[in-house]
Amino acid sequence: MLSDIEICRNTPLSSIETVAGNAGLLPHEFDTHGKHKAKVHPQCLERLNDNQDGKLVLVTAITPTPLGEGKTVTTIGLSQGLAKINQSVMACIRQPSMGPVFGVKGGAAGGGYSQVAPMDELNLHLTGDIHAVTAAHNLASAAIDARVYHELREGFDAFEARTGLKALKIDVERITWKRVMDHNDRALRMVKIGLNEDGKTINGFEREEGFDISAASELMAILALAKDLKDLRQRIGRIVVAYNLDGLPVTTEDLQVAGAMAVTLKETIAPTLMQTLEGVPTLIHAGPFANIAHGNSSIIADEIALKLSSYVVTEGGFGSDMGFEKACNIKASAAKRAPDCVVIVATLRGLKANSGHYDLRPGMAIPDSIFSPDHEALKAGFENLKWHINNVHKYGLPAVVAINQFPQDSVDELLELKSLIHTFNPDVKVAVSTAFANGGEGAVELAQYVVETCETSSNFRPLYQKEQSLIEKLMAVCEVGYGASNIEMSELAKAQLAHFEQLGFDDLAVCIAKTPLSITTDSAVKGAPTGFSVPIRELRLCAGAGFVYALSGSIMTMPGLPDKPAFMNLDLDDFGNIIGLS
Amino acid sequence: MLSDIEICRNTPLSSIETVAGNAGLLPHEFDTHGKHKAKVHPQCLERLNDNQDGKLVLVTAITPTPLGEGKTVTTIGLSQGLAKINQSVMACIRQPSMGPVFGVKGGAAGGGYSQVAPMDELNLHLTGDIHAVTAAHNLASAAIDARVYHELREGFDAFEARTGLKALKIDVERITWKRVMDHNDRALRMVKIGLNEDGKTINGFEREEGFDISAASELMAILALAKDLKDLRQRIGRIVVAYNLDGLPVTTEDLQVAGAMAVTLKETIAPTLMQTLEGVPTLIHAGPFANIAHGNSSIIADEIALKLSSYVVTEGGFGSDMGFEKACNIKASAAKRAPDCVVIVATLRGLKANSGHYDLRPGMAIPDSIFSPDHEALKAGFENLKWHINNVHKYGLPAVVAINQFPQDSVDELLELKSLIHTFNPDVKVAVSTAFANGGEGAVELAQYVVETCETSSNFRPLYQKEQSLIEKLMAVCEVGYGASNIEMSELAKAQLAHFEQLGFDDLAVCIAKTPLSITTDSAVKGAPTGFSVPIRELRLCAGAGFVYALSGSIMTMPGLPDKPAFMNLDLDDFGNIIGLS
Repeated sequence: MLSDIEICRNTPLSSIETVAGNAGLLPHEFDTHGKHKAKVHPQCLERLNDNQDGKLVLVTAITPTPLGEGKTVTTIGLSQGLAKINQSVMACIRQPSMGPVFGVKGGAAGGGYSQVAPMDELNLHLTGDIHAVTAAHNLASAAIDARVYHELREGFDAFEARTGLKALKIDVERITWKRVMDHNDRALRMVKIGLNEDGKTINGFEREEGFDISAASELMAILALAKDLKDLRQRIGRIVVAYNLDGLPVTTEDLQVAGAMAVTLKETIAPTLMQTLEGVPTLIHAGPFANIAHGNSSIIADEIALKLSSYVVTEGGFGSDMGFEKACNIKASAAKRAPDCVVIVATLRGLKANSGHYDLRPGMAIPDSIFSPDHEALKAGFENLKWHINNVHKYGLPAVVAINQFPQDSVDELLELKSLIHTFNPDVKVAVSTAFANGGEGAVELAQYVVETCETSSNFRPLYQKEQSLIEKLMAVCEVGYGASNIEMSELAKAQLAHFEQLGFDDLAVCIAKTPLSITTDSAVKGAPTGFSVPIRELRLCAGAGFVYALSGSIMTMPGLPDKPAFMNLDLDDFGNIIGLS
Repeated sequence: MLSDIEICRNTPLSSIETVAGNAGLLPHEFDTHGKHKAKVHPQCLERLNDNQDGKLVLVTAITPTPLGEGKTVTTIGLSQGLAKINQSVMACIRQPSMGPVFGVKGGAAGGGYSQVAPMDELNLHLTGDIHAVTAAHNLASAAIDARVYHELREGFDAFEARTGLKALKIDVERITWKRVMDHNDRALRMVKIGLNEDGKTINGFEREEGFDISAASELMAILALAKDLKDLRQRIGRIVVAYNLDGLPVTTEDLQVAGAMAVTLKETIAPTLMQTLEGVPTLIHAGPFANIAHGNSSIIADEIALKLSSYVVTEGGFGSDMGFEKACNIKASAAKRAPDCVVIVATLRGLKANSGHYDLRPGMAIPDSIFSPDHEALKAGFENLKWHINNVHKYGLPAVVAINQFPQDSVDELLELKSLIHTFNPDVKVAVSTAFANGGEGAVELAQYVVETCETSSNFRPLYQKEQSLIEKLMAVCEVGYGASNIEMSELAKAQLAHFEQLGFDDLAVCIAKTPLSITTDSAVKGAPTGFSVPIRELRLCAGAGFVYALSGSIMTMPGLPDKPAFMNLDLDDFGNIIGLS
């Protein structure tokens, strides 16, 4: 079979003007960026206001292997399958991060004959939104350290007298806003900045600092959750970057940098329109990493797509404990719009990996042996799929299972899996999807089940309400959601929780950073574990995004590169074409 | 008078398709990025190959105040003036950096009625080239630290046996590739990375590191100097990022990251087409900072513009000791194309500042008193203009002086300056430009002089030849160029020089990082100093760009923010328009 980028390059694409026209956009409602991308102005919603909303289909998955189980393939394939059965449809996905593109996982455009195209443009800079997030984020960092430098060097009173500015008296031990970079760069996780030679202070004041990957920036969550540019600007101004010597929050507004951050992010408010290999209009917006970030595509993109088409297929990263949970408890609450149907992507390989009979680790190839029929492993791993079906039902939402077929899969084993699901719950529809190999044609059965399921009534209920306390919300996600028996808060996290409550942030949502490779916080624990506890080591206040961000287990907010990163395969050929991207 | 952004917003612009058509480009030779920007594919040069080249006009300046003397205003104004007298013309300028936009200097689109438009799009992300440089640069950094981490953690032999890769045995004390960020962020100048808690090594190996501003990245110089995408790829592969334990260079090719870096930079090879407020097609390409970088717009953009128009107006940053020197000794040599005419921008305020009678410092407002007539100060400061005229003549190039008039300037003093120049050298033409207030109409006289001067014969001679040794080249720039009496090499710089010679890099050019606020390396020394020495404290090898980069005096490669940075003025208004950008 051809590589993803070869398939993509060999597929004739429509001009983006044609795609936009097919989607129902008027020429003044978008700006083209090259032949195959366009920025769609959210102002189009004013014209579309009276259109009836389409159905929102959210694609999630079982607990995946480190390479993923084909959720984006299925999202794009399903959208193409819906088009094949003559439904008006759009897909909405998040922008890929360069970290995984150059690291382990590779691109995030889907694959095979179910890709967003051109996949290289999607996977690399797209229309620059992540770069803008990085720039706006680090502008605030530069503003913080510059302010600390000028105030401390001169003394607060002298600084105020000379500049006419109020001294912010930032406590250098309590600067909470870290810098970001859109790379997997472990050496930047913990750094010391503002170093000087010979006891000078020309480079600022020394302090500990760290870099997160850009997708984990609060600004990325703000972009995903903002209603419009005005809301984006206001949310930015609420960001707490530090505490002053009196223990009070210091915001970007206090630093007079919130306006410039919004200016830097101005163009990002417009989702990017692309197309799938079969021409389904696809909106790309906001950031990835549903493990260490909110990690869902944007509310604005969903809104536009729902006004333009009868079906909108979107995805929540990793398993249903990850992106799906955040899509329901954070995004759906902010959007006041629940999904109508949830597709759970399962693979034979992924379920067998969940048996615990295989030793799979990030950065290592998946052994071929996992594709050989293994009844015991499948049965054991099936517990994980049951867990995810139950998890979706917990939210009052109907589930369809999509078995994403790999070429090496045994047909008997696929039938066995279907039968296991049917036995477990005969109401859950199951389709085998060959969207990778066959495009939309391979997802027609899945599309039909999704259409049927969207007609069933659902009764969406998130796991918590705004009015509950922060600890109740954390317990709701960990105990009701993950099925943990308890939460273990570190002393640091306890103190932070008390502080946030005291500051009046009790009405925020919670966003848990957790390994995606287990339902627990320990990536080695597979299947459908019970009786585990969730250690929460640190909380971060995201007052602009509207949630408290909890770091669980040993999850890191800056990934690292493996010893043989994906970047080693990438190059330009003699004609200037990109090779080795997948 | 209206602010720059108000003038820009009130001026009707042509669609970029119209601008491209007017410039002589065919529809398939560019891709639009929004309504007012387009990426121009260098492949158009194949079609244009037989066109006669236009004349290349290089705009430089006297030694400027920290706010600049209006070189971009004059560059854009002159291009508009040439259009007014019915010449076919294009302008070529570098992309602005966000550092100055948010810091002291503000935007770099020109100003008043001589701007590149839309100025906010130019000053912020443009088409993402600087972001791509930052991303490609920092990818190499992540690759270095990841490789060091994996090799040291496992041991060289075990690493080789397991991965099949050759251990690079990078000497962690001799990693020369710093990270970059496109902000003025002094706290990142000197940092320690790879810190760990509790003696673990999960975050990599601790080492000293620093961040430069992105414009100073070797990749930016490579972009500016590359002939085409293939040359870009090859130059990237020659970059030396570190030395191994045997003292031998380690390149990006050794790290197998050169291909991915080129992939990341692929789209940057295409210059961005915009227009001036009067519709002159303008190509934007490569980076700023002629003080701490090569800092000229690209050879590719010049080549395209020269094939499309009779006159191409470009600029070299700061005074003629800075960007102009690099345009002649680095860019012209690489392009095998010298300028035909040089315009030296002078202002009354700038010359009086060069008298040394005023105390001007970066970050401080310029006192109004400098605009009052001051015969003594003007006469004293005029020495600086004489120096720059002589400097241009040193290269065998004809000079025209453009006096950039400020509204507060005294007419008598303007006449006095013209007379001083005439007395000094009656062959040098002088025009007062009011391009800021009057657009191209204010630069018609200047345009006429430029046309006349382009017809005179020139005899370009750079200050050194490739075959000379590195120290001879440094002496040529410092002693013949700046007029210094000698160079003082630090012990470090001497050792580096010997090492580079030993490694066979003697045929590279030299690129000197120096304060732009003085002809010397001390920003406090104004006018036309003599008998000074140039302290060179450190050399950096830029084998891909093709030069050795020398840090002189106390110049820093990462600027800092002042106490009241320009970002404080920026915001979005209720309609989502940017306000406060200048």
